[in-house]
Amino acid sequence: MFENTEKTNIESLGEFGLINHLTKRAEIRHKNTLKGVGDDAAVIDFAGKRALVSTDMLLEGIHFDLAYTPLKHLGYKAIQVNLSDIYAMNGIASQVLVSLGISSKFPLEAVEELYKGIYLACEKYDIDLVGGDTTSSLQGLVISVTALGYADEKDIVYRNGAEEGDLICVSGDLGGAYVGLQLLEREKLVYLENPNIQPDLEGKDYIVERQLKPEARKDVVQLLKDIGVKPTAMIDISDGLASEILHICKQSDKGCNLYEDKIPIDPMTYQTARQFNLDPTVCALSGGEDYELLFTIKQADYEKMKNLADVSFIGYITESSAGRNLVTKSGAVHEITAQGWNAFKKND
Amino acid sequence: MFENTEKTNIESLGEFGLINHLTKRAEIRHKNTLKGVGDDAAVIDFAGKRALVSTDMLLEGIHFDLAYTPLKHLGYKAIQVNLSDIYAMNGIASQVLVSLGISSKFPLEAVEELYKGIYLACEKYDIDLVGGDTTSSLQGLVISVTALGYADEKDIVYRNGAEEGDLICVSGDLGGAYVGLQLLEREKLVYLENPNIQPDLEGKDYIVERQLKPEARKDVVQLLKDIGVKPTAMIDISDGLASEILHICKQSDKGCNLYEDKIPIDPMTYQTARQFNLDPTVCALSGGEDYELLFTIKQADYEKMKNLADVSFIGYITESSAGRNLVTKSGAVHEITAQGWNAFKKND
Repeated sequence: MFENTEKTNIESLGEFGLINHLTKRAEIRHKNTLKGVGDDAAVIDFAGKRALVSTDMLLEGIHFDLAYTPLKHLGYKAIQVNLSDIYAMNGIASQVLVSLGISSKFPLEAVEELYKGIYLACEKYDIDLVGGDTTSSLQGLVISVTALGYADEKDIVYRNGAEEGDLICVSGDLGGAYVGLQLLEREKLVYLENPNIQPDLEGKDYIVERQLKPEARKDVVQLLKDIGVKPTAMIDISDGLASEILHICKQSDKGCNLYEDKIPIDPMTYQTARQFNLDPTVCALSGGEDYELLFTIKQADYEKMKNLADVSFIGYITESSAGRNLVTKSGAVHEITAQGWNAFKKND
Repeated sequence: MFENTEKTNIESLGEFGLINHLTKRAEIRHKNTLKGVGDDAAVIDFAGKRALVSTDMLLEGIHFDLAYTPLKHLGYKAIQVNLSDIYAMNGIASQVLVSLGISSKFPLEAVEELYKGIYLACEKYDIDLVGGDTTSSLQGLVISVTALGYADEKDIVYRNGAEEGDLICVSGDLGGAYVGLQLLEREKLVYLENPNIQPDLEGKDYIVERQLKPEARKDVVQLLKDIGVKPTAMIDISDGLASEILHICKQSDKGCNLYEDKIPIDPMTYQTARQFNLDPTVCALSGGEDYELLFTIKQADYEKMKNLADVSFIGYITESSAGRNLVTKSGAVHEITAQGWNAFKKND
């Protein structure tokens, strides 16, 4: 099929490398394109109002395993994952388009379950389903969602606005979605070996839900608005804290110091990670899929923020030459490297 | 996996039935959602300016066969298919987001070829590539594109505006993409039987290009603007003339008379259809993928339109009770039924 003599394995580039490689040629021709590739969402000007647009695709066998993913949860998650990108721009999410590729193994009732989750997410997050495309697939389920939102220009938060001295904040807690996935994968193996054994997820609801039914942090965006704090930079955590803080640092041309002991990890996440012989900090840094918001604020805003129950201060922004560092509990300093969830490296 | 006792085969509904079934629950919560599901694109108000959004997904093995589809053409077509929906609203297409699922069989150079076609389409049609998502897939290539455009409210043309007496117009010619596909499929079989035989596509460039490299009719939208004609209803022909005129009639609550002898069919399409023992009119009515524009105009606009080389007048709109009819060359009257390209019925 491809007669090129030179062939490059896509894995060698990784997802970000591939995207960078493919989009470096992207030219901007329309003056209403204010932000193209390279942030959580594109920003498009419509008569002074800013439209935010983002899209994410979920593929069976890559992003989800129907052995343990209820279709209703999957529909819910497919929407959340996309809304999260709009919130990460400090925008108001308002519409989604949903495209489905469905193989013949799925009866109508299965697709209805999926849509129940989609509608539940739309209802709960005040979203209009405005379009999409539905087709058959040769194999497996494909879900592609595009989310739209809006914001005034003065409210939009990009990844590139972090300044030296800014505090690094994260909502909720991290690593739970990844540890929840390990648990589900283990129970799947147990089940495959002996279908009579029921899954042992007793008392693990929280981390299982973090994996199967994440919630985009619309509430955090609203909270920040209420207390009059506009982050200087923001991104959602889909690929893990390490990968995301590097995006902010790189695009802001800054460094950072993150403190291991400040990274919020739920006790159940911690304890279950230990049972799997996983380092809870590594799960938080590289696990991904938490869909929390990572953002930076001016130090002057600390007083307004310090009593928020659901936001942790995990470090601060430095000048670029100081590097991007993790200060461990023992005081050692490590350079942060992105070992986030990589759809190419994980599934080859 | 699904413990429902009742299982309904999706095929039995067809694509439109499934979409209707799934989207009938869709509520509109945002007052800026002016049009949700049910037209070529959603219409969203941004400070008075209308954003148009549409999305289409192409799956390997369903929508394209890489045995005879060059990847550059495929990238080009994936964009055209989406732009066509924006033009069908009488809008100006301005941005696209492209999501790819790529299996490990594709080297980077293959993805680059695909993007060459994407960029070529963007360049030629004045489009900004502003985002997307790239991931691996277990099998095959998945392309999901979302197109954005804009228009003033007064310029937008919906499917539901046709009035009794309006003339039915179609751009270009029909059936070519379908006949081109038959040709490519035949040559594929010949090749599979004997790889030493070269494909015989001699002199068939036009219909092969209609299939592999369609052009969305931005020029027709511009032409109508130039001569001061606003269609009363419009749709693009992705599923075949029959299916599309039924959409216009149904959504406008009208009937129609289409005249077989007025349907524009290119001589090469006609001749090749005959070679395949296909009725050229059936190819035009049900073949699909021509991406021409089907639209209705007021009779008063006929004078302005009559000399346009690339637009045919193929019938007129009647009251709903008169039915939706095709008048054949022999003068017989047949009810029009949609037997368009159906992604569910075709691939089971």
